[in-house]
Amino acid sequence: MKKFIYDFREGNMSMKPLLGGKGANLAEMTRIGLPVPPGFTVTTEACHEYYIKGAKLWDELINQIFQQLKVLEEVTGKRFGGINHPLLVSVRSGAVVSMPGMMDTILNLGLNDDSVEGLVNATNNARFAFDSYRRFIQMFGDVVLGVKKYKFDTALEKRKNERGYQQDTELTSEDLKGLVGDFKNIIRKETGNDFPQDVKKQLQMAVEAVFKSWNNPRANVYRKIHDIPDSLGTAVNIQSMVFGNMGNTSGTGVAFTRNPANGEKKLYGEFLLNAQGEDVVAGIRTPKEISDLEEKLPTVFQQFLKISDLLEKHYRDMQDIEFTIEKGVLYILQTRSGKRNTLAAINIAVDMVAEKLITEKEAVMRVEPQQLEQLLHPTFDDEALSRAELITRGLPASSGAATGRVYFTPEDAVKAKNAGDKVILVRHETSPEDIEGMVASEGILTARGGMTSHAAVVARGMGKCCVAGAGEVKIDQGLKLIKVRDLVFREGDFISLNGLNGEVYGGKILTKEPQLTGNFQTLMKWADGFRILKVRTNADTSRESKQALIFGAEGIGLCRTEHMFFEETRIPVVRQMILARTLEQRRDALEKLLPIQRKDFMEIFEVMGTLPVTIRLLDPPLHEFLPHDEKDIKELAQSMEMSYHVLKEVVKDLDEFNPMLGHRGCRLAVTYPEIYQMQARAIIEAAVEIKEKSNIDVKPEIMVPLVGEIKELKYIKQIIVQTIEEVMAEHEVKIDYLIGTMIEIPRAAITADEIAEEAEFFSFGTNDLTQLTYGFSRDDAGAFIKEYLNKNLLEKDPFQQIDRKGVGKLMEIAVDLGRSVKPNIKMGICGEHGGDPNSIEFCHLLKLDYVSCSPYRVPIARLAAAHAAIKNEE
Amino acid sequence: MKKFIYDFREGNMSMKPLLGGKGANLAEMTRIGLPVPPGFTVTTEACHEYYIKGAKLWDELINQIFQQLKVLEEVTGKRFGGINHPLLVSVRSGAVVSMPGMMDTILNLGLNDDSVEGLVNATNNARFAFDSYRRFIQMFGDVVLGVKKYKFDTALEKRKNERGYQQDTELTSEDLKGLVGDFKNIIRKETGNDFPQDVKKQLQMAVEAVFKSWNNPRANVYRKIHDIPDSLGTAVNIQSMVFGNMGNTSGTGVAFTRNPANGEKKLYGEFLLNAQGEDVVAGIRTPKEISDLEEKLPTVFQQFLKISDLLEKHYRDMQDIEFTIEKGVLYILQTRSGKRNTLAAINIAVDMVAEKLITEKEAVMRVEPQQLEQLLHPTFDDEALSRAELITRGLPASSGAATGRVYFTPEDAVKAKNAGDKVILVRHETSPEDIEGMVASEGILTARGGMTSHAAVVARGMGKCCVAGAGEVKIDQGLKLIKVRDLVFREGDFISLNGLNGEVYGGKILTKEPQLTGNFQTLMKWADGFRILKVRTNADTSRESKQALIFGAEGIGLCRTEHMFFEETRIPVVRQMILARTLEQRRDALEKLLPIQRKDFMEIFEVMGTLPVTIRLLDPPLHEFLPHDEKDIKELAQSMEMSYHVLKEVVKDLDEFNPMLGHRGCRLAVTYPEIYQMQARAIIEAAVEIKEKSNIDVKPEIMVPLVGEIKELKYIKQIIVQTIEEVMAEHEVKIDYLIGTMIEIPRAAITADEIAEEAEFFSFGTNDLTQLTYGFSRDDAGAFIKEYLNKNLLEKDPFQQIDRKGVGKLMEIAVDLGRSVKPNIKMGICGEHGGDPNSIEFCHLLKLDYVSCSPYRVPIARLAAAHAAIKNEE
Repeated sequence: MKKFIYDFREGNMSMKPLLGGKGANLAEMTRIGLPVPPGFTVTTEACHEYYIKGAKLWDELINQIFQQLKVLEEVTGKRFGGINHPLLVSVRSGAVVSMPGMMDTILNLGLNDDSVEGLVNATNNARFAFDSYRRFIQMFGDVVLGVKKYKFDTALEKRKNERGYQQDTELTSEDLKGLVGDFKNIIRKETGNDFPQDVKKQLQMAVEAVFKSWNNPRANVYRKIHDIPDSLGTAVNIQSMVFGNMGNTSGTGVAFTRNPANGEKKLYGEFLLNAQGEDVVAGIRTPKEISDLEEKLPTVFQQFLKISDLLEKHYRDMQDIEFTIEKGVLYILQTRSGKRNTLAAINIAVDMVAEKLITEKEAVMRVEPQQLEQLLHPTFDDEALSRAELITRGLPASSGAATGRVYFTPEDAVKAKNAGDKVILVRHETSPEDIEGMVASEGILTARGGMTSHAAVVARGMGKCCVAGAGEVKIDQGLKLIKVRDLVFREGDFISLNGLNGEVYGGKILTKEPQLTGNFQTLMKWADGFRILKVRTNADTSRESKQALIFGAEGIGLCRTEHMFFEETRIPVVRQMILARTLEQRRDALEKLLPIQRKDFMEIFEVMGTLPVTIRLLDPPLHEFLPHDEKDIKELAQSMEMSYHVLKEVVKDLDEFNPMLGHRGCRLAVTYPEIYQMQARAIIEAAVEIKEKSNIDVKPEIMVPLVGEIKELKYIKQIIVQTIEEVMAEHEVKIDYLIGTMIEIPRAAITADEIAEEAEFFSFGTNDLTQLTYGFSRDDAGAFIKEYLNKNLLEKDPFQQIDRKGVGKLMEIAVDLGRSVKPNIKMGICGEHGGDPNSIEFCHLLKLDYVSCSPYRVPIARLAAAHAAIKNEE
Repeated sequence: MKKFIYDFREGNMSMKPLLGGKGANLAEMTRIGLPVPPGFTVTTEACHEYYIKGAKLWDELINQIFQQLKVLEEVTGKRFGGINHPLLVSVRSGAVVSMPGMMDTILNLGLNDDSVEGLVNATNNARFAFDSYRRFIQMFGDVVLGVKKYKFDTALEKRKNERGYQQDTELTSEDLKGLVGDFKNIIRKETGNDFPQDVKKQLQMAVEAVFKSWNNPRANVYRKIHDIPDSLGTAVNIQSMVFGNMGNTSGTGVAFTRNPANGEKKLYGEFLLNAQGEDVVAGIRTPKEISDLEEKLPTVFQQFLKISDLLEKHYRDMQDIEFTIEKGVLYILQTRSGKRNTLAAINIAVDMVAEKLITEKEAVMRVEPQQLEQLLHPTFDDEALSRAELITRGLPASSGAATGRVYFTPEDAVKAKNAGDKVILVRHETSPEDIEGMVASEGILTARGGMTSHAAVVARGMGKCCVAGAGEVKIDQGLKLIKVRDLVFREGDFISLNGLNGEVYGGKILTKEPQLTGNFQTLMKWADGFRILKVRTNADTSRESKQALIFGAEGIGLCRTEHMFFEETRIPVVRQMILARTLEQRRDALEKLLPIQRKDFMEIFEVMGTLPVTIRLLDPPLHEFLPHDEKDIKELAQSMEMSYHVLKEVVKDLDEFNPMLGHRGCRLAVTYPEIYQMQARAIIEAAVEIKEKSNIDVKPEIMVPLVGEIKELKYIKQIIVQTIEEVMAEHEVKIDYLIGTMIEIPRAAITADEIAEEAEFFSFGTNDLTQLTYGFSRDDAGAFIKEYLNKNLLEKDPFQQIDRKGVGKLMEIAVDLGRSVKPNIKMGICGEHGGDPNSIEFCHLLKLDYVSCSPYRVPIARLAAAHAAIKNEE
């Protein structure tokens, strides 16, 4: 016979998977001698069994529960459903991973029309007894029977109004007795059945309700958000009740052993006298600060201080403790690691190392990498935020908080910025021509596009706030306004964006700048000591490179040369190159681009010194550099001294049905080798110049994008090498360089053994690889990926977190094939996933050499890499 | 020391890889006692060695050649470069796989100013000797020294004009002697060097020229078209010359042992008296039918009949024999399997089985699947033909009927073809440079040349209609017109060709579908007996289904439901469905589509009976069904009683950057499950109706497109199954059906084990799979794939032939994973590749159950499947 029930005295902390977090903690606290009200736990295995049996309780479990209940009766000297000294219990869920407030709890179970009288007798407090009974009926009605809570609240308010009461505490025992009757009537009316007087039935129904609550919608959403597997299930804790509402020497409260907002080492929390726990949580009465307890109940306070210290030392973490005082006697109901913000997490971790409570390794594990995002960007002032009007939500595409005036074109944005305005650029979606407008803006709001849309990627690179794909936002470019339902914001009106959660507010909200503390630096230094993965950055400019270095980048993993092409002074030359009708003309234009590119690379090399710099050769299709609407084409034709019709024809010719799958990447170089020749020359000439000027050996790593076939890489490599040899011969200087390739086409992954023959490094371009592996266009998939997540057909947006089963499998194949040919081939990742902690762990498991991410994610990646290494130690 | 030289007496047929086709054949013929002029072969290994050594002859090879030359001198009793009885040789290429006319040949080598006198003495025929000498200089100049051929022709024409001659035969020995001087002057002028008098140097230069000719552009093109690996290399055959131009008891000719145009068992060919082989091939003189030889040289003719019979029996295949008669003595210069059109190939194969020459299996292997395409070409509609104007007749050089516009140069032909015209290429005669123009044409008409002229041979190889040697056709290249007597046809005018009988018609003639002969049916029946793969068809209508059944389809592998949506009467309802703003509205529209779809399926089921019918649910993105230009949107808005602006907004909202990777396939059903519900209902209701009406159990196989994740398929399958259960319950009828999926997304291939848990069949959608594996958009890749093929970065267009290394590897992974879960899961292919013989072989190797292709390729697929099975027997 399987054991589904554990007395708190049988368990301990290590039994969390079986007993759930709360059950294991209650057992552990019991074990170390804390005053925990006695009780027992129904295991998570019982929850599995419950679902396997088609969501039904079964005899064996019921027997075990009532067997154990007898033990509880003996220990407490009370009887369940008894008229004298009735045993009341709480029934609470307790998942393996904490899901606070997500699942249901029932208190005071065991009361019925008989035992309530018993409670009156036992406590000599009729008011308390009937208050408990009416609370129980309400909770049971809500949680177990599905009667809307407000119906009870309405009845309560009605009674209070009849009596002219302000506070619940003014209700007399007679009032409460009447209320019990009202509540029972509500239940009869709403469910068609009487409130169950059989206490055993009450208990069975409550256990079943807790099991069911595992699958309620808000629990499902919470698990989705927090990455908790649906399969864990919940335990049920049945515990004898203690009462904080037995007069003014009773009370209840919650306390953190340290301040969860900044980590300060000082008890932090609140309590209410003559109240039950739900009163604190519900916020109906305003609780008092925990320090006030010293004055009210000094002995209890001293005892609590000792216990809280004991608990922190025992669990070696900041604790969040629930307690109840029953007639001057302190009971600890629950303790768990306290939630805290990033600042607190860092400070507590570092302090605890100083206090020798935890090791550096543990400290590193105490801060979630993703949390760091909060520290690295501006945030809204809490007070200002509380007064702000939320108008819609989009995707949290790039963190930070931004407030500014709405502008609709990059030109207007630049103009407004130059005039001294703070700008929010609002676009259907952005494209490379918008870059200057994006630079000029505080934040970017797009109506379409997903987490890896152009706006999102570029904004993250810039460390700029971006909310993308806010579908409710309807843009009227002509009238220069946006509509959000019936709200209208015109050019120049203020809006505010929260890139951390995708919220969009009307009006201006005060923001505050991030502060990187000494403790942050300490923690990051420890993290660096544990991680194996190197962390590089995706940076296209010297400005971004500098920012990334400040954040600890160890090189550039992706320098996109095309972003350099879009600047206002260069784009005419780029267009001249594209519109060239002969090789001669194209060479002329490239000749003009050469010194510009060389200068770009020099600036970056100067910042990066001897750190490796991976430069991706031109990648986007050429039509991205050409204008597409009539007016712009006309202007360009004029400035190029071309016929409008000829130019239009060229633009049309270059247009593609599926540009993502079109003439781009190294395919451009197969057609126009001279483009990559120019770029290779610019890179090596820059390296030569740095060497001659400063005697610094820069480490260029030249990366060929979109390779799918070894012959392609071979052809291009030979062209590049020839150019490089020429440059080195001209200058009589030797530069160390590598030539490698992106692995972003499925075929490259599958034939990586061949590719490795020519490539000196692989860099996984997981954006494109994800697009092609799923057949999802990241520009278009926003529309349906949402639906997939809603319907649980995707666990995660694969553009945010590497899909290990599909995309990851291809990566694994590529890694294995590549190493089979070249065991020490350098491998990294430069897709957006390079900044995602889960994906970084995957890269660690694949034993890649580095991840590369946008500058603002470098600290996150460093910490995530440390986590990955520590979690996966033998 | 490696042996690079083989005497004809040393080799045999099995040594083809070493000696090349021609060399092995000469050796084999020598071995079986035929009168072959003695000689020897320089091996293909020598050709490899030549290229490995940087395209240079080396001492060892030169020594071996001259060693063997001594043997040849002994055998023939002649001396190379000798003044008395000079030994003259031919130097010919001989590749492993026949490449007729693609590489270079030199005749009469060994002549110089001295030996020509020796030849005069030896033969007592100064005219012959100087004619041979001038021919040699011309060929050597052209082939070895790169002097343009027309320069010699011009000099020849000039002499003839001076003398007032019509025919070359009128030239006297003195004329020819003068011509030798002219030719030598041309060579000196063009190359700066004298024509080489050292015969050993002549031979070395000639051998080198043959090696080099392996890599000339037209040989490269030919190999690309015919799938011949570049690595094979060519052998060189050096053979003592015999002369067909030593007077009227000499001659030369070419004969097929059976008719290459229809397979008739009768010697077929042509000859010229007093001529060398090149005269026949060049088409300058019009040759006589082979049967005429009986009258002219009866003994030789009888001997030739015997030899041709012997050769056919020996090689067990129809032979193409080159012969020369030197002063009444017959020499066989070459024999090889004769090229034939498809009709002939089939008839010969079936006849030879009847004659017990070959087995049925061999017969099946004698017809290349791709060749069947010829049979599927249209012939003229009888009625239209009866009204057509016959303008002239030529030789029926390659069968089929063609109608098109006249063009005169290969460039113009290609241009016209690209502009959408049907082209008839008209030439005096064709040469290898014309190949691209021939590819672009429906048919070829030449004014000169015979059945074995270049045009005829190449056209037959391509399965293209050709009328050759239509002497009445006078071509004016300058004015771009032809005159046939007093009729004039200008560039762009229509003419029509009947390649089966050589008739040429003015104007356009309606064509009709081919009739498949009894022999064709016999051969296909044999093929069906050998193949393991089933062959289905891609058909969207009952008409296509019928056609496919006639061609032997065993089911439908792909029925695309969206094609049904585009019909004029339905598209408004489809649009109503798309533009629905509520589920209610969408259901209304689907309600209207239901009976239409049901009728479509019923019609197809009625044709297919109990054969399986795979129906793919809606696949394309919805925007494909909406108009995109202003005017059409306006019209639609009016007809839908919608505001233009609202409709435009919807159209814009649905627009995608990369529709191939967008909201399509089963993604539509995730968003709008009701679409697939309607389709599933239509399919099953149609099946029910057929069953109730005719008691036929149709076999619907419902195919979910674009699945990439098992949960997606699970979700959709459950929706479909529920609908089907409903329909079956409503009608109280059980229908057997399968639900399966396309494997066309790389992720589906990689996770095929999971997918197989839910799918009852896999159908590889290799079009999309190729797009995604390469990251090539089919619609856009044309622009660069050509460049890839030109630069040899791709061996084959992967959309035409499955890329086994990449796409094929993914298929293999999917097959293995799928079978690991469901060993007997049905698997097929429905991409374009299902009709490509090479890809079909790959499917056979993967042990798929079936291939599916367009109706007109079904016979090709059946035969290809048989070839695959036979080729890959243990």
